Amino acid sequence: MPHMKNRQIRLASRPTGMPTPENFEFTDCEMPVPREGEVLIRTLYISVDPYLRGRMREGRSYIPPFAVGQVIVSGAVGEVLESRSPAFQTGDAVVGGLLPWQLYSVASAGMIQKVNPELAPITTALGILGMPGLTAYFGLMDIGRPQKGETVVVSGAAGAVGTAVCQIARLKGCRVIGIAGGAEKTRYLKEELSLDATIDYKTATGQKSVTELREELSAVCPNGVSVYFDNVGGEISDAVMMLISQGARVVICGLISLYNLDKPDIGPRIQPYLLVNSALMQGFIITRYANRFGEGLQQLSEWLTEGKLKYAETIVEGFENVPQAFIGLFKGENLGKQIVKVA
Amino acid sequence: MPHMKNRQIRLASRPTGMPTPENFEFTDCEMPVPREGEVLIRTLYISVDPYLRGRMREGRSYIPPFAVGQVIVSGAVGEVLESRSPAFQTGDAVVGGLLPWQLYSVASAGMIQKVNPELAPITTALGILGMPGLTAYFGLMDIGRPQKGETVVVSGAAGAVGTAVCQIARLKGCRVIGIAGGAEKTRYLKEELSLDATIDYKTATGQKSVTELREELSAVCPNGVSVYFDNVGGEISDAVMMLISQGARVVICGLISLYNLDKPDIGPRIQPYLLVNSALMQGFIITRYANRFGEGLQQLSEWLTEGKLKYAETIVEGFENVPQAFIGLFKGENLGKQIVKVA
Repeated sequence: MPHMKNRQIRLASRPTGMPTPENFEFTDCEMPVPREGEVLIRTLYISVDPYLRGRMREGRSYIPPFAVGQVIVSGAVGEVLESRSPAFQTGDAVVGGLLPWQLYSVASAGMIQKVNPELAPITTALGILGMPGLTAYFGLMDIGRPQKGETVVVSGAAGAVGTAVCQIARLKGCRVIGIAGGAEKTRYLKEELSLDATIDYKTATGQKSVTELREELSAVCPNGVSVYFDNVGGEISDAVMMLISQGARVVICGLISLYNLDKPDIGPRIQPYLLVNSALMQGFIITRYANRFGEGLQQLSEWLTEGKLKYAETIVEGFENVPQAFIGLFKGENLGKQIVKVA
Repeated sequence: MPHMKNRQIRLASRPTGMPTPENFEFTDCEMPVPREGEVLIRTLYISVDPYLRGRMREGRSYIPPFAVGQVIVSGAVGEVLESRSPAFQTGDAVVGGLLPWQLYSVASAGMIQKVNPELAPITTALGILGMPGLTAYFGLMDIGRPQKGETVVVSGAAGAVGTAVCQIARLKGCRVIGIAGGAEKTRYLKEELSLDATIDYKTATGQKSVTELREELSAVCPNGVSVYFDNVGGEISDAVMMLISQGARVVICGLISLYNLDKPDIGPRIQPYLLVNSALMQGFIITRYANRFGEGLQQLSEWLTEGKLKYAETIVEGFENVPQAFIGLFKGENLGKQIVKVA
């Protein structure tokens, strides 16, 4: 296929604080040729995810850092152009969690799964029926363990994971309070997802203080917070922690407020809240649940087809806009799952 | 029994910072008379516990605060002088967790248990075979879940709970590192309890920095920390948290470094360590395990009689010294369980 031009996005330099377009480099590259057991994929949709910021930093995390000069990899949905694996056929829609930011790529069969376009739009394989949906499902059900009537607070509530967590908690009969930034997001949470209450953490010029957040939360959580699903960290979490109730479960899913911090993150130590409430706080990474993905996807698909689960996607067009879409995550530009449509 | 004089210790005022003798008031009181279902107890040994500091403060905790003017209650061992319950006989040694700081008191039968003086000295009912032992056992086994070969770090390692945790972790085949203050304590941990390593957090003039503690810990925890059993909080915990390993469990049992703080406790937020390590942190209070105390005591007694478990007690004599013994807890004056011998 010599007429097709291939391009890729590399990490040009490690971001300091908020990433900038200069941290990314577009380069032309060869069209890859699949070997036995591999398929050639045309990238259709690229997922940009907050956790990628961690991989752009040096040092220990749950996943090794990108090297400078390396092609970024993330979740993506594509179409099989050529298959040298019996598991896939030309034309299949496929999804992978670690595909390169590249117009065309090869992947070994074990790195991708088929997407069923009859079930839902294929973009959902990057959102509600993909890693964010599974993250919401297992984090909430397995660590949060919401019980009917309990109060569940979700930070980053209008994001890809947050919107799913809020709805699953509602399906489990909980009172759900979503924390998000801006009127559009809180309106969506309240009106479209029917949350019991929302907190807009933003002010005209910045962010509400811990005291303000705590007061607003306190007013809508008269019995305290039984489950806190945290996507954000920082002062928002400081405020929620002050309100946890006996036996509370705090799920540490993400800490987007910190990912661009290049200084120590200082705040009130939270051990006393955990001690006096016999409460649990647990971090997790979704790949730990890999052997239960089937179970999770089945439940999520069921809720989706029954109309019990909604999802939001913010789709930007153009491969050249992948870095900006990624950067936008940290400015809260996305409602629901942020995706870049490549083709 | 009109010849016997009764005395009690009341909370005279709420401590600000470190408690002082002036926060306590000794008053003469009447000899109580047991009613049906109650027993009259002569107090022999009183347990002073760090957690009592929390009850001297106003505000929400896992147990209501003492009122100013109220008689302090804590664990105590006594002798039954008169019984109006079929469950107890004159001469029985008994223990209760909520007995008054008082020379003679009455308790309803449900508030006390018999102590078997043949099994071990009766003081152990306040230590290794009492709340501290049970706290160590359930906190470590149920939340810490130590696996053979794992590295377990214990802060407040030379205290009543800490000494038990260290030994149980050793019995489970773990590498155990104890953090304590002063050469006498670290020597005891190393030589008497055979820990793999100890960290003395004190310097000649104060306390080692987080950086120093982290470096010393790092040297003795080359594979990181799988279980951290925390009795202390503050900067010691900051240092340990930086070294937790994948899937670590952090047991928040006590926070003695904070109990006298009357300002917010600020430090590095620990959520990132929990997130990147898929780690768990859980606070607990031993009364949650009340229905399993029998199981715990049986195991602890077995280890004790087999000589697998040692215990240390620091016994001060004289009812008048109860407040000082309590205050001494926050100065690290005790090795093992701090007890006051009353009679």
